[in-house]
Amino acid sequence: MKVNLNRITKDIETLASFTATPGNGVTRSSYSKEDKIAKDYLISEMEKIGLEVWEDGFSTLFGRKEGKDPDAPVIMIGSHYDSVKNGGAFDGVAGVVAALEILRVFHENKVEHYYPIEIIAMNAEEGQTFGPGTGVSNSRALVGRFKEEELDIAKNDEGLTKRKAMEEYGLIPDFEDAKRTKDSIKAFIELHIEQGPLLDKTNIDIGLVEYLPGIGRYKVKFKGELEDSTAPMTSRKDALVAASQFVINVNKIIKDLGSGITGTVGELNIVPNSHQFVPEYVEASVEIRIFDEDIINKVNLYEKFMKEIKIIQAETNVDIELKEMTRIGYPNPTPPSIMAKDNLKMMETACKELGHSFTIINNGTGHDAMIMAEYVPTNLIYVPSKEGISHHPDEWTDYEDIKKGIEVMLFIVSEISKSQTKWETYQE
Amino acid sequence: MKVNLNRITKDIETLASFTATPGNGVTRSSYSKEDKIAKDYLISEMEKIGLEVWEDGFSTLFGRKEGKDPDAPVIMIGSHYDSVKNGGAFDGVAGVVAALEILRVFHENKVEHYYPIEIIAMNAEEGQTFGPGTGVSNSRALVGRFKEEELDIAKNDEGLTKRKAMEEYGLIPDFEDAKRTKDSIKAFIELHIEQGPLLDKTNIDIGLVEYLPGIGRYKVKFKGELEDSTAPMTSRKDALVAASQFVINVNKIIKDLGSGITGTVGELNIVPNSHQFVPEYVEASVEIRIFDEDIINKVNLYEKFMKEIKIIQAETNVDIELKEMTRIGYPNPTPPSIMAKDNLKMMETACKELGHSFTIINNGTGHDAMIMAEYVPTNLIYVPSKEGISHHPDEWTDYEDIKKGIEVMLFIVSEISKSQTKWETYQE
Repeated sequence: MKVNLNRITKDIETLASFTATPGNGVTRSSYSKEDKIAKDYLISEMEKIGLEVWEDGFSTLFGRKEGKDPDAPVIMIGSHYDSVKNGGAFDGVAGVVAALEILRVFHENKVEHYYPIEIIAMNAEEGQTFGPGTGVSNSRALVGRFKEEELDIAKNDEGLTKRKAMEEYGLIPDFEDAKRTKDSIKAFIELHIEQGPLLDKTNIDIGLVEYLPGIGRYKVKFKGELEDSTAPMTSRKDALVAASQFVINVNKIIKDLGSGITGTVGELNIVPNSHQFVPEYVEASVEIRIFDEDIINKVNLYEKFMKEIKIIQAETNVDIELKEMTRIGYPNPTPPSIMAKDNLKMMETACKELGHSFTIINNGTGHDAMIMAEYVPTNLIYVPSKEGISHHPDEWTDYEDIKKGIEVMLFIVSEISKSQTKWETYQE
Repeated sequence: MKVNLNRITKDIETLASFTATPGNGVTRSSYSKEDKIAKDYLISEMEKIGLEVWEDGFSTLFGRKEGKDPDAPVIMIGSHYDSVKNGGAFDGVAGVVAALEILRVFHENKVEHYYPIEIIAMNAEEGQTFGPGTGVSNSRALVGRFKEEELDIAKNDEGLTKRKAMEEYGLIPDFEDAKRTKDSIKAFIELHIEQGPLLDKTNIDIGLVEYLPGIGRYKVKFKGELEDSTAPMTSRKDALVAASQFVINVNKIIKDLGSGITGTVGELNIVPNSHQFVPEYVEASVEIRIFDEDIINKVNLYEKFMKEIKIIQAETNVDIELKEMTRIGYPNPTPPSIMAKDNLKMMETACKELGHSFTIINNGTGHDAMIMAEYVPTNLIYVPSKEGISHHPDEWTDYEDIKKGIEVMLFIVSEISKSQTKWETYQE
């Protein structure tokens, strides 16, 4: 069984051509014209190999290859096919193409398998189109975690709500139809570009994920008062002094909680950010990562931060608001998303047999696999990103590298799809 | 005696047309082609009214109207005629045009005066052309504070040193020729746009300056280590944590020194400034303003900051460097630049007699008047800046407002130039 480099290349290049910004990266926003064309391409490729194709009530595209036991739980393979504005040709698409190629290989080799296999091509993974917190929406719908109100709050650049944009796309959202039961899914396996520099820097072929650390994300808004640098110290409302105190306190609080958690204020946006003026406004981004699930149960981080904020507010006379940055990880961080151990071991074996170098990367955020991992046995395979660049026209992964990732995935899909051992839920 | 609005308008519009960026603000860099054309225009306008015109050894243009006593100290009026890149039509030029217009009015009214009067059109006031610390260079040369080494260090955008640029402009710098003795100057009076919003916001015609607060300016560079937000807290070198601690400490140190001083960290430039990464690098700008000269003698601010930096460095493992931001105010802040009191009083009288509303504005930085004030009796008059916008194509002052400022200046120049009281040095 051979993965075909030409087919992968053609798929990725074809999908990359469905962009609203030719010559300036891939822009394939959910529910756009380019989304439709991309989906049509995927449908036609799936039909070529005789898959049963349908779209669920939330615009996720499926292509099913029946197993010997049609009632057995399904092995889902895939990723998302939407992109950010002026993004790259690989983020999401690499995983969809991987799934397509695996079933092509199965098809041309007439592979028989016990479990049904479904390609899953998700939409609306990127939170950018409808704003912070709207990402990974199709996997959230699948596991029953999408809240209907989001449809009427989030708006895209054209000012359309998500509901309206879906309607114009020809889809009446149907949440019940989009949900899948835990029992019905044997495994979810996603291939994705790393979107980080590690594999590229160390020249390693494959990144395997043991777990994605849990995540908490906050935006903190400091509203002070603009004054000239000659304004008296005693009456100032210096937004940067308040924000700085917050940076120090977050660092201390998190440090005191030990090694199971990290916390970073990595971004401050300061207005006007001029040496001549007392800063009027600062917006800080806080990212919490959780390695030890117990911490979430022991500590209420949101309350801890709110307490600090009240103290800083009183000391500085700066108004402070703690808000969500994304819909995920607010007000409390999520637990780590732990990947299926047996399948991970099997992928290590695959790498060794195939002669592909690999390493463990327990990093990444916001992938559909993060949502799926809480629900069904899930695995995530990374392939290298040149210089770690992503969400940018310069995003690049060598097709040969994608091929290697697909080979690992093909190995494990072959192994688990032919197995007839009774499926057990991940929790047992 | 009447100030002529049409002449002012024509001067400003003509000078604005000598720009390297037509349609995108005024760009008249020192020693450029546009500088030469502007100077030629000023020379021809000065010659029209019979002034004795010359350029000193540092490219400052003078136009002298002789007084009854040619040996008496001179009344200098003017400002600078160079601009930043994509700047406005008023910064500097308004003061040069004011001086020109006053001598035109004197000329057409055949005013006789005891003291000689000189228009002074300075160059290289803007520090942008040759980089931080190179500003107010012609006034520094005039008072003997320009250090020759600067000629060979500072470079413009084309990579020319200041010396080379001056040579290509046709000028061999001659410091001795550029110097003027204290005794030879009775007064220096500059009109300038406010470059702040106060007059515009409060709808007041004239801003009179009692003193420009002294200034200290520092750049502080924090060099940490880039890591992902999942990096362990204990081994991090978080540049923003270090910078935040510095912001807090500066605020406290300055507050503790009482009301004679202010200190602001108004600007942080953070790299990469992303919520996903531990900040690798932060550059902070600190601006100190001094209202009470005693503070400079009592406290060594540079040493105080260095002490804090050493502590923060030890605590955070972040490398910290304290550097100059501008050539002025480093390592120690300058004392306040106090304006001539008698002339200030006379300008208040002028405003009242003319029916122009006025207020005291003790603010501003880096004007030639700041340099001159330490040397000879100096005064500074502000006219409104629309919305405080300056160094920008949208910089705007109504011609009517400039006319009002010139009227105040005409009043005082008339008064002091006809006086025959023996000139005394400012210090006595």
